[in-house]
Amino acid sequence: MPFWLGRQAAARGDQWAVLAAGGRWTFADLAREAGAWAGRLHALGVAPGDRVAVLMGNSAGFVALVHACSGLDAILVPLNIRLSPAEIGWQLADCGARVLIHDGDRAAAAQHATAEAGCRAYSVDALAQTAVPAAPALPAAIDLQQVQAVIYTSGTTGQPKGALLTYGNHWWSAMGSALNLGTHTTDRWLACLPLFHVGGLAILMRSVIYGLPVVVHESFDPAAVNAAIDADGVTIVSVVSTMLRRMLDARGGTPYPASLRAVLLGGGPAPRPLLEECAARGVPVVQTYGLTEAASQVATLAPADALRKLGSAGQPLLPTALRIVGPAGDLPAGAVGEILVQGPTITPGYLGRPEATARALRDGWLHTGDLGYRDADGYLYVVDRRDDLIISGGENVYPAEVEAVLLAHPAVADAGVIGIPDPQWGQVVQAAVVRQPGSTLTAEDLLSFCRARLGRYKVPAAIRFMDTLPRNAAGKLLRRALRTDSPEEALP
Amino acid sequence: MPFWLGRQAAARGDQWAVLAAGGRWTFADLAREAGAWAGRLHALGVAPGDRVAVLMGNSAGFVALVHACSGLDAILVPLNIRLSPAEIGWQLADCGARVLIHDGDRAAAAQHATAEAGCRAYSVDALAQTAVPAAPALPAAIDLQQVQAVIYTSGTTGQPKGALLTYGNHWWSAMGSALNLGTHTTDRWLACLPLFHVGGLAILMRSVIYGLPVVVHESFDPAAVNAAIDADGVTIVSVVSTMLRRMLDARGGTPYPASLRAVLLGGGPAPRPLLEECAARGVPVVQTYGLTEAASQVATLAPADALRKLGSAGQPLLPTALRIVGPAGDLPAGAVGEILVQGPTITPGYLGRPEATARALRDGWLHTGDLGYRDADGYLYVVDRRDDLIISGGENVYPAEVEAVLLAHPAVADAGVIGIPDPQWGQVVQAAVVRQPGSTLTAEDLLSFCRARLGRYKVPAAIRFMDTLPRNAAGKLLRRALRTDSPEEALP
Repeated sequence: MPFWLGRQAAARGDQWAVLAAGGRWTFADLAREAGAWAGRLHALGVAPGDRVAVLMGNSAGFVALVHACSGLDAILVPLNIRLSPAEIGWQLADCGARVLIHDGDRAAAAQHATAEAGCRAYSVDALAQTAVPAAPALPAAIDLQQVQAVIYTSGTTGQPKGALLTYGNHWWSAMGSALNLGTHTTDRWLACLPLFHVGGLAILMRSVIYGLPVVVHESFDPAAVNAAIDADGVTIVSVVSTMLRRMLDARGGTPYPASLRAVLLGGGPAPRPLLEECAARGVPVVQTYGLTEAASQVATLAPADALRKLGSAGQPLLPTALRIVGPAGDLPAGAVGEILVQGPTITPGYLGRPEATARALRDGWLHTGDLGYRDADGYLYVVDRRDDLIISGGENVYPAEVEAVLLAHPAVADAGVIGIPDPQWGQVVQAAVVRQPGSTLTAEDLLSFCRARLGRYKVPAAIRFMDTLPRNAAGKLLRRALRTDSPEEALP
Repeated sequence: MPFWLGRQAAARGDQWAVLAAGGRWTFADLAREAGAWAGRLHALGVAPGDRVAVLMGNSAGFVALVHACSGLDAILVPLNIRLSPAEIGWQLADCGARVLIHDGDRAAAAQHATAEAGCRAYSVDALAQTAVPAAPALPAAIDLQQVQAVIYTSGTTGQPKGALLTYGNHWWSAMGSALNLGTHTTDRWLACLPLFHVGGLAILMRSVIYGLPVVVHESFDPAAVNAAIDADGVTIVSVVSTMLRRMLDARGGTPYPASLRAVLLGGGPAPRPLLEECAARGVPVVQTYGLTEAASQVATLAPADALRKLGSAGQPLLPTALRIVGPAGDLPAGAVGEILVQGPTITPGYLGRPEATARALRDGWLHTGDLGYRDADGYLYVVDRRDDLIISGGENVYPAEVEAVLLAHPAVADAGVIGIPDPQWGQVVQAAVVRQPGSTLTAEDLLSFCRARLGRYKVPAAIRFMDTLPRNAAGKLLRRALRTDSPEEALP
């Protein structure tokens, strides 16, 4: 397999590769920048197989560093910028990073973290001022078996583990995505998700595999995303539900242009009212179910099915196989069980964690821990994360189902549901709710709304009103964090 | 890898798969038809690994048989319907075919050929009337290493050899094509080339890999192709130069609709005047250089480069690598040499021909025998088939270059050039020319035209006017056949 960036630089060197506030680069520019950064990393002693940690917000420089690591056969470790220095230090030590490259906003955290981890920290801005040392030329070929990155899973459900992603994982993911969404030679994919998460990194990989530009936003700004769709030729954007909600609110009644051909919606089950609003407004939203361990998308709803299968995450991507299993084996259509995934996009395992790898990868199948079912046509519906499952009086309660009802109330802006211990029922449902600005909604009103729509055991035993809900950088609700805060208001 | 047809039948069973005069099938229909034909072949004794020869014109039934063979792990041997019975018999014996399936028009040839080859012939129409016997279910998975078809190379340059094509060859070819041309969820690819050639078969493979319909025409009819583009939603069509010429002539001044997004032009170097006319008329023609041994496309001009690199076959497809070599090794940009190709689309070799395989595949590179060069930007220009190279007085003459000049004359409809022995110069150039209807062009006029545009040694020593030129079923000029006919008129 030819080195993707090198091939694109040769084949379409004069075409846009990266469009960011800090740099507008063609593929030839990007190859030159990646080569320069490979030279600087090489001068810092980075050798093939070394781990290079990156603690940076989204930027053109981040993109260059990704390909510079590939150029040196080094392994990228993109770190979550919202981590505490102690957490960063733990991950640096866990992966044995040789160097940490950070941007200006992360200087203090980087210094603190590396002091503990015995790893050297370098400012990307300071390095950029240095002359480019001689470096090995970017390689002509890449080995699909080789590890490209270690990505620590988000930690919403336990101790972080570094999932290994190979070039082959990315290649097959890009192929599967292309076969499902199509690829147009006019495509521009917007990365407003963090590049340190798999959803953002996968956009960079697709860019060099497809030979198409990526538009990089430093952070998520709904007005800026809307403007990029209108004026910068963005045809596909990857978002999570809360981001899409804010985009629609910022947009008002103005329709999106026909050039926007897909809004890829990930980060967990989406509220049905949001999907219905998108359908009514003609927003081409396609739900996807993805995992770090699967190099992003596992299943994605084809655009043609967006209305017919509203709420579904669609069919598994072509090279991927999928099973729904219960304690007694494979389950029939309609039955909820654990989602198992197999195929060339799946991680070979977790760095230095043979037990965790063996637990996750059994008989060649990744056990995702997520719950879902397939309908009679084989479409996947993701119900919830298994670890968030609430069992109350022997009945299963899927938080997402309760959240969808809460979110359907016009005065509710955001909602999260957890189980809390209860002496009578084992667990009961507790809801955290963010009201719409200016709303005077009471807990009793909201509970009446729920009682009319949910089985008794699913109705929250308590509602806490909050100003905002804890979400990670990818927009995923941190249900664990909901358990630690003290309630502002509770019922009964 | 999931069995492509089965996966598409599950994922989009209700969407069109095959649109032909003899059948309009969804993917569910096609899976059912393929299953039925697998049952019939199984009842005829066809077992995994057996060769199933097919001697049929384009039809929906041909498509079903292709996938029926896959369903049985049998190997498809699509035969050229223009062969003589003796040639068919030779190929049947060479591949050890278990059965030959033929359509009505080929009944006599099939009976004659199988009598010699010790292989049984069956009429597809008679079989279709029989009840469907029980058969093994279509497989859930396919092995990319496994051979899907044996395709005999066209024989313009020697004894036919059966090139093995694996599922992996087709998969990577489809991926490379998708990355270059893009795939749109609205695509419909028209197969008016013979399905027994790799260019047609590859369309069928892309159809089940992409999950998009193929439109099948029984034979090439320029008015029918134009109508399919206007009314049947055809977005891509694969043709050779003479077909495109006839399409344009039949079309008159009516522009093609914007939904036609690519005319993939293969079958050898294209006349520059044709390309220029397409550019002027807004026909989205993209030249491709392909080979049976590479599962069709090797290099294809990206649509964005169609004007900027007129006459080029573009860049190699992404997983493919390409070299231009002379006797002393790799050649610099601009220098003409043999085209070598490497990558996952390349045949593992020729059936039962270890010497021919070793000659063609040396050090992991397919030696194509074709001549070309890359420009400074790396774009491939195919100059000619090596075996057609004329050497006159020590100077190399590439027939295609002379043909392009002849074709540029407004009174010339078709032209072919060969070398004939000459006592003084070794070889001299001889041209065969078809005049436009009603033209009174003389050889002397045409030679004057050539002298003004070609170096002296390239100007034909003789011109023969003919009614038509010998071409094979794929539209490729049979230069060898030009050598055997007696001239109608010669100069000097």
